[in-house]
Amino acid sequence: MRTTLDALNAASPEAFAGFAGDLFAGAAWVGERAARARPFPTVAALHAALLAAASDASPEERRDLVRGFPDLAAELAEDGFDRLPAAEAETLARFSAAYRARFGFPFVLCTRRRTREAILDSLEARLSGDTETELAAALAEIGHITRLRLVDRVEGPGPPPTTGRLSTHILDTHGGRPAAGVALRLYVVGRGGRRLLDSRTTNADGRTDTPLLAGTPLRAGRYEIEFDIGPYFRGQVDPAVRNLFLETVPVRFGIDEPEGHYHVAMIATPWSYTVYRGS
Amino acid sequence: MRTTLDALNAASPEAFAGFAGDLFAGAAWVGERAARARPFPTVAALHAALLAAASDASPEERRDLVRGFPDLAAELAEDGFDRLPAAEAETLARFSAAYRARFGFPFVLCTRRRTREAILDSLEARLSGDTETELAAALAEIGHITRLRLVDRVEGPGPPPTTGRLSTHILDTHGGRPAAGVALRLYVVGRGGRRLLDSRTTNADGRTDTPLLAGTPLRAGRYEIEFDIGPYFRGQVDPAVRNLFLETVPVRFGIDEPEGHYHVAMIATPWSYTVYRGS
Amino acid sequence: MRTTLDALNAASPEAFAGFAGDLFAGAAWVGERAARARPFPTVAALHAALLAAASDASPEERRDLVRGFPDLAAELAEDGFDRLPAAEAETLARFSAAYRARFGFPFVLCTRRRTREAILDSLEARLSGDTETELAAALAEIGHITRLRLVDRVEGPGPPPTTGRLSTHILDTHGGRPAAGVALRLYVVGRGGRRLLDSRTTNADGRTDTPLLAGTPLRAGRYEIEFDIGPYFRGQVDPAVRNLFLETVPVRFGIDEPEGHYHVAMIATPWSYTVYRGS
Amino acid sequence: MRTTLDALNAASPEAFAGFAGDLFAGAAWVGERAARARPFPTVAALHAALLAAASDASPEERRDLVRGFPDLAAELAEDGFDRLPAAEAETLARFSAAYRARFGFPFVLCTRRRTREAILDSLEARLSGDTETELAAALAEIGHITRLRLVDRVEGPGPPPTTGRLSTHILDTHGGRPAAGVALRLYVVGRGGRRLLDSRTTNADGRTDTPLLAGTPLRAGRYEIEFDIGPYFRGQVDPAVRNLFLETVPVRFGIDEPEGHYHVAMIATPWSYTVYRGS
Repeated sequence: MRTTLDALNAASPEAFAGFAGDLFAGAAWVGERAARARPFPTVAALHAALLAAASDASPEERRDLVRGFPDLAAELAEDGFDRLPAAEAETLARFSAAYRARFGFPFVLCTRRRTREAILDSLEARLSGDTETELAAALAEIGHITRLRLVDRVEGPGPPPTTGRLSTHILDTHGGRPAAGVALRLYVVGRGGRRLLDSRTTNADGRTDTPLLAGTPLRAGRYEIEFDIGPYFRGQVDPAVRNLFLETVPVRFGIDEPEGHYHVAMIATPWSYTVYRGS
Repeated sequence: MRTTLDALNAASPEAFAGFAGDLFAGAAWVGERAARARPFPTVAALHAALLAAASDASPEERRDLVRGFPDLAAELAEDGFDRLPAAEAETLARFSAAYRARFGFPFVLCTRRRTREAILDSLEARLSGDTETELAAALAEIGHITRLRLVDRVEGPGPPPTTGRLSTHILDTHGGRPAAGVALRLYVVGRGGRRLLDSRTTNADGRTDTPLLAGTPLRAGRYEIEFDIGPYFRGQVDPAVRNLFLETVPVRFGIDEPEGHYHVAMIATPWSYTVYRGS
Repeated sequence: MRTTLDALNAASPEAFAGFAGDLFAGAAWVGERAARARPFPTVAALHAALLAAASDASPEERRDLVRGFPDLAAELAEDGFDRLPAAEAETLARFSAAYRARFGFPFVLCTRRRTREAILDSLEARLSGDTETELAAALAEIGHITRLRLVDRVEGPGPPPTTGRLSTHILDTHGGRPAAGVALRLYVVGRGGRRLLDSRTTNADGRTDTPLLAGTPLRAGRYEIEFDIGPYFRGQVDPAVRNLFLETVPVRFGIDEPEGHYHVAMIATPWSYTVYRGS
Repeated sequence: MRTTLDALNAASPEAFAGFAGDLFAGAAWVGERAARARPFPTVAALHAALLAAASDASPEERRDLVRGFPDLAAELAEDGFDRLPAAEAETLARFSAAYRARFGFPFVLCTRRRTREAILDSLEARLSGDTETELAAALAEIGHITRLRLVDRVEGPGPPPTTGRLSTHILDTHGGRPAAGVALRLYVVGRGGRRLLDSRTTNADGRTDTPLLAGTPLRAGRYEIEFDIGPYFRGQVDPAVRNLFLETVPVRFGIDEPEGHYHVAMIATPWSYTVYRGS
């Protein structure tokens, strides 16, 4: 059941603290401290005030806060990855135990802002960090987790950004028009290979009818789009050519800002192409 | 032992026919008919005359000519592919038998002008052709096989083209200079995957010290070059960025003219790249 | 005073013919013949029917139709060019007289779909054509003139296209963002030089706040946009460089479809730029 | 009459000083002080040693050295610009007098490394500098002047660089080949307009047969190349199009390093083009 920013601004300190406790895995004190700063003009300002209260807490309080959050496996399960391949599940379990043993708090990650591949590929490096850095990283992730929760639960003006967008466009500068009818496939790329996310075909404007990804945070990680421009240009090249210079054009790129807009634009001829991050 | 164009121009008709017979798998008559047109000013003219004699022959003579040539497996063995994986060897043997059974002559192919992957991926389609088309295709391949043999065996002016070249270049238009020190890898691509051919690093001029491929015909087929431009640009991008927009850039392209020059040029920034067939 | 498509569909044949006569410089017969095809579902269909009636007329009728239209000077005056430089005015007068003398009808041109420069630069060539071609050209121009008049005078669904759009965008692939704050100037180019139309500066999205041209037909002809990208990149290049490689980048292009959308896109670094007709 | 590095290395101190005096407008002391460092392995080392002797001199000696050099008008005359338009000549004379009056030494400039336009456009700014900066600038110019003189007069290994190169290339990625037969014109651009330097046509490789500029220092300044790509692509675009999107493509660029290589490369289709400083 969603509440409203107005209701939270008007709530008793206890009710406000209770709401914050729900967001912050039981740490109602975050809400107690932020309550004084009410009323908040926007949902984003409410979230910023709660995070500031968490950041300003003592090291012990911050550590306890992190301890309250579920670790990676639980977060992944909530994110829909509850049936990981056995090898991956085992790697995760081993890593989670090692992390908690070393730092004394769980490995907290907002999994909805990372590809599964990026998560798995980066685990190892996290075991060699120092406690202070890891604690700060965990709090940053708690910021992301609670922002998504807050936007789910509170209606009101000025929500913080929680969605990104991935779009594409193919322009045919051989013919001087958008490239319509080009099949393309979107993959997530990891160290162990790639995983198909979606298949699309460009419309008359050289775009996909809807963005490739939208409505949620983008998962940071590495991606690939394969554009089948060979069939598109086939009729415009000497028919004696068996091996076209360009057939399937792979474009591999990284997404780093889950709330950003990534426009992967392509300008193509049968003999050349330009790829750029557009706007 | 190499001979010279002068010697062939001056040889007796019988000796000239014998030389041509060696080139054309025993068909000395090709040389008998071409001998009259001597002297040839260039090695290329000599080859053209021999091919013309073969093309002008009767259908029966042409079929016999093709029958004299070794089929695919033998040609591949000579080309260094004598230890194919068992599955591929079996596919080849099955195809060769079916081809000969259907058309009455062996499947003749100048394997040195095709990638192994392109050969294997195209076999099936050849069984559904008609005899006339296949005979013409076989004669075209005999032209390629004998051209390579001729250039090996005869010294003289004006040899026909028998070598291609694949080169690359990376220009950094972020810094306005050639991109030096970029690691790259060249692969052959087939339906079943890709096979590493070579690893290189660009020099101060953004090129490889020697062409990626040269000195022989290029093998027609599909290729991929992976350019590691992420490490090159890493220092020029906000260090907080974990997933660079461009890291490893794959460029997939086809080679169709074994005696051509393919220059795969790249112009890159951390946010864009242009690929084109240069000159 | 505007009328509506419904009213025209319901009008008496005489009233409809009168309306058409106003559009077609007095040739009410165009409306008489098109009236039977009523009701028209769209304004575009109404216009098409009127043009069809004109095209299907006899050669004499068509010639008379053309004779009824004002010639170039009158049309230019209505288009706001009533104070042409003396030399241009004289050239026009001389040409108009010669044209009428040669073909027996006035030089009819929908001046709102051409740059003044394109009009003046093309006059000469028109005197060497044959009568049939010129008559057809005049009727095509009458189609454009009446389409603009019709859309001005009739409200209703499905109006024919009478507006074009010229827009621009600059992307900075050195920094990976839209190029904001770039000054640019739009010129019309003719044989005798260029004429400044507008000066703008790009906004945060690398675009101009409003299209460079919109709301009317584009004037076909040649244009130039000068982009001052030197000042934009100045801080990102070695300060010892006095003459930047790129300072003011001129982009010269043609507009050929007055009702089209021309998007002149630029992707720039301090050392390179790409210009394309985008979509 | 040219001498050799060997002869200068072996010459008496007096003869060596005399040679240096000829180079440095009479300042034989430059040679006296550099003579001790002989023998010089390269002509470049000889020049560096002479410049070092000049730089290490006292402020009075350096000022006297500069006073010995001819000022701008004389240098321009030697450079072939002895018949400047009256207005320019007068501007120069006025500036030269003002400069000498202000700083007590002539305005020394190696005019062969600047376009006349760049010289004239930059004069004003030089009158507002301080004496120390101007003295250093004059010595830098003397370095350029004497380097050119030295290379003219002395034969020997390792000459310092005194030549630059401007080249161009047009690639047609619509057809996948070099753009042959494209007319182009090279201009020098100044505040007051542009001046035609040369007209060329691309050869079968899309290049000019010889570099646009070579064999001397490039003159730093601003340039423009106009490429007539409209006629080249005309046959490949819908013949109904009167105003091609691209007709004459102007490329404006700066040259800043007179001894550098500037390769102005263009990749074009009828609807797009890319310009970059190549290598």
